[in-house]
Amino acid sequence: MIHKLIEKIKKTQAPIVVGLDPMLKYIPSHIVEKAYGEFGETLEGAAEAIWQFNKGIIDNTFDLIPAVKPQIAMYEQFGLEGLKVFKRTLDYCKEKDLIVIGDVKRGDIGSTSEAYAVGHLGRVEVGSRSYAGFDEDFATVNPYLGSDGVKPFIDVCRQEKKGIFVLVKTSNPSSGEFQDRLVDGRPLYEIVGEKVAQWGETFMGDSYSYVGAVVGATYPEMGKILRKIMPKAYILVPGYGAQGGKGADLVNFFNEDGLGAIVNSSRGIIAAYQQEKYSKFGEKCFGEAARAAVEDMRDDIVSALKGKNK
Amino acid sequence: MIHKLIEKIKKTQAPIVVGLDPMLKYIPSHIVEKAYGEFGETLEGAAEAIWQFNKGIIDNTFDLIPAVKPQIAMYEQFGLEGLKVFKRTLDYCKEKDLIVIGDVKRGDIGSTSEAYAVGHLGRVEVGSRSYAGFDEDFATVNPYLGSDGVKPFIDVCRQEKKGIFVLVKTSNPSSGEFQDRLVDGRPLYEIVGEKVAQWGETFMGDSYSYVGAVVGATYPEMGKILRKIMPKAYILVPGYGAQGGKGADLVNFFNEDGLGAIVNSSRGIIAAYQQEKYSKFGEKCFGEAARAAVEDMRDDIVSALKGKNK
Repeated sequence: MIHKLIEKIKKTQAPIVVGLDPMLKYIPSHIVEKAYGEFGETLEGAAEAIWQFNKGIIDNTFDLIPAVKPQIAMYEQFGLEGLKVFKRTLDYCKEKDLIVIGDVKRGDIGSTSEAYAVGHLGRVEVGSRSYAGFDEDFATVNPYLGSDGVKPFIDVCRQEKKGIFVLVKTSNPSSGEFQDRLVDGRPLYEIVGEKVAQWGETFMGDSYSYVGAVVGATYPEMGKILRKIMPKAYILVPGYGAQGGKGADLVNFFNEDGLGAIVNSSRGIIAAYQQEKYSKFGEKCFGEAARAAVEDMRDDIVSALKGKNK
Repeated sequence: MIHKLIEKIKKTQAPIVVGLDPMLKYIPSHIVEKAYGEFGETLEGAAEAIWQFNKGIIDNTFDLIPAVKPQIAMYEQFGLEGLKVFKRTLDYCKEKDLIVIGDVKRGDIGSTSEAYAVGHLGRVEVGSRSYAGFDEDFATVNPYLGSDGVKPFIDVCRQEKKGIFVLVKTSNPSSGEFQDRLVDGRPLYEIVGEKVAQWGETFMGDSYSYVGAVVGATYPEMGKILRKIMPKAYILVPGYGAQGGKGADLVNFFNEDGLGAIVNSSRGIIAAYQQEKYSKFGEKCFGEAARAAVEDMRDDIVSALKGKNK
């Protein structure tokens, strides 16, 4: 799956992942009203609105991008109805040949981590048969519990040729509270980064590992160091756009081959129509606004990378 | 809810939580076969087997214990069908007046952490109405992302009078890889413990906070130190029994008032019938075996605590 991700990034020339994090306040009122008209102001109604919104975003962007990253929390908050539309969204993205990165940030130990890995990336055995639960292509993983938490994911990935992105340095303001604390004179995120590199060596694709990392766009200097510590890890970079990261900040996350990073934007794309810059589209054309935002993001990153390679 | 937890612990004289982590290999064959007979070897069949097993455990132990802790990973691995039975189990436990600790180990940032908090502990707004998604009483939370990840949970808990247990020092062998690294000469888990104490001060019950901690039974010396660092945090203690923790190891986790800790056992209770000690029950009487294991665990802990108070 890491090969397919790289292939698709090369083909689209867009190291971009669209974060499908559909909060109700991002969804145009005509969609919400139609859904509530059909299902009432219920969890089913909310789920239907989310589905129609996601479909509009996907239909208008799938040919431009290699991957999407649905944030499961935004679905889980609506309970079972939300998770049904999470699954429906995954399935639809795969029909459109998009790579799906499940932003689930799971992490536990031993057989429990294995259960998460099986549920999101693998197949669960039921008697003599086996079934895929959610069936993402990649998942994000929290490393706080150490190797016991991460290795079961790698084992499942090895069977399924899928991958993970391990949280190393997250994009939020307080990420430093623990991640930046100095251990033997070096910040904890570097120690975690080293572990990611070690885990990654045990499961390599051709030039990149199936074990990637999450490093926030909001910390470009740390990105530069982590890029060197984990040369073969694909870096999933959140925090572009709405959280403040810019194209020029991103060059540090890429390798000399122009690869090695994929940049996420969520509300900057899916709620583009709510920004002044894209307001001409109007809320009816939220999908076209998202498409324009993807094109602008791609151009921003590509031109920043060209600057680097000069 | 922290009041209710303490009340129920006092009433049952059992600072015990039963971990409802139903792997298929723990479920007696007569239950599995009946479920497959009805639904086939399908995800629905697995979910039905889990439900019947959980019900048997709950019916045989609910009057002895204050709380249960379903591990969501064990349900999530079966996809939507698994999550349906997770919800069904939560609802049934609440009918039995058990406190439900959702072992979900979620953690993200800002609005995403809020969405997890809303989904598991709060109510999500849909137009002019609101709905509870999963509706646990407590949830476990991963702190790696710092205050940005934890505070949204506390905000939701404040509205709902619910609580969280933050991972501080986990019970697994490799938990030390990051948690034990020295920061200014002190292990990271102590730094996290200090944060838990600070977060906890912002949301107190009478004598204990709504913000608790997870500290593994397998690390009793660390438990002693953490008990002092977080005097008002309830400590959820996994790792008793199958993972190697014993009653005598647990006294460090309690305060002088005999309160302050609640000890989890999962397979040691729910799969008791598979142990030689309880084999006389046979697999048909798995529920009675679980009841006997709860009684033994309670007696083990109570006598260890009496020893401490001498």
